[in-house]
Amino acid sequence: MFSWIALGMDKMNFMSGEIAACLDHMKKHVKIVGAKMKKWPGSTWETIWEVGREDPRRVIHGLKVGLSLTLVSLLYLMEPLFNGIGQNAIWAVMTVVVVLEFTAGATLCKGLNRGLGTLLAGSLAFVMEYIAEESGHVFRAIFIGAAVFFIGFASTYIRFFPHIKKNYDYGVVIFLLTFNLITVSSYRVHNVLKIAHDRFYTIAIGCGICLLMTLLVFPNWSGVELHHSTVSKLEGLAKSIEACVNEYFSDEEKETSEDKSSEDPIYKGYKAVLDSKSSDETLALHASWEPRHWRHCRFPWQQYVKLGSTLRHFGYTVVALHGCLQTEIQTPRRVRALFKDPCIRLASEVSKALRELASSIRNRRQCSPELLSDHLHQALQDLNTALKSQPRLFLSPKTHQSTPTPTNANANANANLLALATQKPEKGMGVSLTSFKTDTLALMEWKSNKRASCEQAKTLRPTLSKIAITSLEFSEALPFAAFASLLVESVARLDLVIEEVEELGRIASFKEYEAEDEQVVVTCERPKGESVAGDLKNLPTEGAD
Amino acid sequence: MFSWIALGMDKMNFMSGEIAACLDHMKKHVKIVGAKMKKWPGSTWETIWEVGREDPRRVIHGLKVGLSLTLVSLLYLMEPLFNGIGQNAIWAVMTVVVVLEFTAGATLCKGLNRGLGTLLAGSLAFVMEYIAEESGHVFRAIFIGAAVFFIGFASTYIRFFPHIKKNYDYGVVIFLLTFNLITVSSYRVHNVLKIAHDRFYTIAIGCGICLLMTLLVFPNWSGVELHHSTVSKLEGLAKSIEACVNEYFSDEEKETSEDKSSEDPIYKGYKAVLDSKSSDETLALHASWEPRHWRHCRFPWQQYVKLGSTLRHFGYTVVALHGCLQTEIQTPRRVRALFKDPCIRLASEVSKALRELASSIRNRRQCSPELLSDHLHQALQDLNTALKSQPRLFLSPKTHQSTPTPTNANANANANLLALATQKPEKGMGVSLTSFKTDTLALMEWKSNKRASCEQAKTLRPTLSKIAITSLEFSEALPFAAFASLLVESVARLDLVIEEVEELGRIASFKEYEAEDEQVVVTCERPKGESVAGDLKNLPTEGAD
Repeated sequence: MFSWIALGMDKMNFMSGEIAACLDHMKKHVKIVGAKMKKWPGSTWETIWEVGREDPRRVIHGLKVGLSLTLVSLLYLMEPLFNGIGQNAIWAVMTVVVVLEFTAGATLCKGLNRGLGTLLAGSLAFVMEYIAEESGHVFRAIFIGAAVFFIGFASTYIRFFPHIKKNYDYGVVIFLLTFNLITVSSYRVHNVLKIAHDRFYTIAIGCGICLLMTLLVFPNWSGVELHHSTVSKLEGLAKSIEACVNEYFSDEEKETSEDKSSEDPIYKGYKAVLDSKSSDETLALHASWEPRHWRHCRFPWQQYVKLGSTLRHFGYTVVALHGCLQTEIQTPRRVRALFKDPCIRLASEVSKALRELASSIRNRRQCSPELLSDHLHQALQDLNTALKSQPRLFLSPKTHQSTPTPTNANANANANLLALATQKPEKGMGVSLTSFKTDTLALMEWKSNKRASCEQAKTLRPTLSKIAITSLEFSEALPFAAFASLLVESVARLDLVIEEVEELGRIASFKEYEAEDEQVVVTCERPKGESVAGDLKNLPTEGAD
Repeated sequence: MFSWIALGMDKMNFMSGEIAACLDHMKKHVKIVGAKMKKWPGSTWETIWEVGREDPRRVIHGLKVGLSLTLVSLLYLMEPLFNGIGQNAIWAVMTVVVVLEFTAGATLCKGLNRGLGTLLAGSLAFVMEYIAEESGHVFRAIFIGAAVFFIGFASTYIRFFPHIKKNYDYGVVIFLLTFNLITVSSYRVHNVLKIAHDRFYTIAIGCGICLLMTLLVFPNWSGVELHHSTVSKLEGLAKSIEACVNEYFSDEEKETSEDKSSEDPIYKGYKAVLDSKSSDETLALHASWEPRHWRHCRFPWQQYVKLGSTLRHFGYTVVALHGCLQTEIQTPRRVRALFKDPCIRLASEVSKALRELASSIRNRRQCSPELLSDHLHQALQDLNTALKSQPRLFLSPKTHQSTPTPTNANANANANLLALATQKPEKGMGVSLTSFKTDTLALMEWKSNKRASCEQAKTLRPTLSKIAITSLEFSEALPFAAFASLLVESVARLDLVIEEVEELGRIASFKEYEAEDEQVVVTCERPKGESVAGDLKNLPTEGAD
């Protein structure tokens, strides 16, 4: 009995504790909101300014919407127009609010969906009316109810079809809306088809104004947007890969910040590429409605989507390269420096090719036949030569211990591993492994003995895994090998990108490349052979093997 | 003069050619459509069946929408209800069509947005009416026109603010719609506030039915969907990384198909992860409106989004691993086999950890403290040992030519390189490089002499780049080093994933882990030391260096 009461008390304590925590949380929230309110006017002005500065077309679009609404309101406000059209003028206002979108393609897509949905629903409702006309009052109500149920079910279900969802989702909603409005109204209002007819006119006027505004007054084209975004993605990747390699070989040690701040030029370069799938597809869908390129039968917007997907895959390679910069085990800078020149040259050749592709798309011309220049091959070969000239590089670090290196200290910069790390250069490898072994054993014992509470386990685990990775005596060059291999991989991926861009140029009939179009300035000359060879000599080649 | 005519004729020829191409294209299109129409009934039934089978909740949702619409139509169809509510009942129908969405969160989000937008617009319109009431007819029209313009501009512009766009986009549209309807109507209809008042009731009824249906009848929760999708993403990654490593070390040669068919288990595993950003964010947004977890003050849906982003970054590493399978230069299978056991074990440990994380989230319990098992460390160490036991591996392939290998033939399976490839094993490396050199030189001459037309350049370039990559005598082990390094990298990324999952468990107060919850069956035992050592002996260690 007492235990029950105690349990109940416990529960109440627990609940009151929860409520107190909740109140606490709310208090904090209120404080934060209060602080925000003080800064509110300033930050709001900043946002307003920033949004407009980022893309001035937004301001224009806002003005366009305001103007269209005012124009369409005139139908209602001006006496002669109102006399002609009447109360239904309000439907024109509704149409403008709902249909007018930022780009011409989106407006057309929505407008046509709306038109098609309304027409279909009107026809179907007419058929229904025809069937139900002769029947009695009660039967008619049942018939309408059943029709509403069935059409509601069918059109909701149809919205899950991938093809419908992608292209006609809005149209189906409008179909359902209109069908219900007409069918249900027809039960009590008898001139419903007359009303539908009148409304159709005003909706057509609304659509007309939208088309006028979207196609003729400062039009924004989805196609152009897609085009520009593709160009900027190519340029972003070019920047990213260059910055990545430069940072890898830079001399000063950067603290590896875990949070990818937007300031990081590498992250900024590929960020837009990675999550571009849905925006690409939407833009391509809207672009396919735009009348601009109808003379080409069908402008290949889907090719842009394909190119985007290839670029995303290129982007994943760049992310993996970026990962090499942030990983736990690092090849010492001294070793990296040996391969600095060929790697930087290779990266700059890849990004040059990407920039050439970007400029070819921007100017809608086919890409230069000298795109994959001999410089690229030269850089690949130099990297190859450099790698081969260092056969001993991939040996375990212990085999060339004769030279004093700051290697392990670098790799194990982790504070709580410092003791372990400073031990290592003195002791042999077996010792180091043993020391790790005992470490784990100790941890295991500690765990089984103490029934580690989760809070403790949390602080423990990351360290544990870091020990596991950094304490391993992987061949120092392994991470560099990964870096080099990914760099070569990026060249292979570049090929796929070039193929897609060429395909795009072919389908979209870009103008032919003319050598006079631009003088390609070769900025990255191959440095003199001596300097590379000189660098390479620095590595101790006397192995203990 | 003649030249002008000739030019004109040329242009006409060009245009007629274009038109002919267009017609051709259309004919093809018609044929394809015809063929499709024949298969239409069968494939449609298939799609209908498939969509329902994939997720039976879709059928239920369809039935719910049908039922709600019928219920709301009764307001209009049944005499007593209609007498109470009148013509405005039609607005309830509209509300249901527009507001009722698949998940409870989405419905609530839309419903509240709609409600808020309508209320705000109504209040603002009331203020406007109050100001304009006393003025003359003409001034009033001008005032209304100006208000419509200004509010139209401001609310369109405000939709570009990231915060508004994310949370209240629909609400702003409804605000604009309602404001215009009321303000413009008020010019001619004088009891407009009475109408608005009546409509508000029917809209409330519509919203009520939507809430009832969405919250009480077979509810679908966005939160649960997000939860499940996170679990399945973790499991997909686990499958993917395992399949990837298994395929890398499998004995039979698979043809590397460039198109990532959906059948590929590796691609299938990580596909859902890569493009999950927008769906994750939408689900989290909708989930935050759901009342299910209100007792937690604020359930940490944003933590799911953060975890999703970490998973995406893990996914990029898996993509890079997958890239190692498809790359041009491949480490020969004979060499790979040496590291088969530790790599496969490492991968299976990583995927075991991912599966444990998935199951911990699925069961809403904190994850096992033995998550990063010693098996993982053991596998890491074994890989380390295996790598170190092969110091000569990273030498150029020419240095251990004594054993006959099918290596280069494999790597250069490219048909047009066969001649080059078969030459290579016989000749020394210098020769091979020279042969490549002359190849490029020949190409360069050919290019400069012949002014390569772009069509020719297209067929030429990919080959050129493939020659460049495959003909390089990179150390054979370089690609394997990348593979191993990425595998180790995935362990490091796993750490970040674990951190996020633990953070999620902490914030969402998952129940504590109990050892009895499930008996972890250790399936991947460490193979006996002898077999590894035996394998390692197979590599020829007599170098020519």
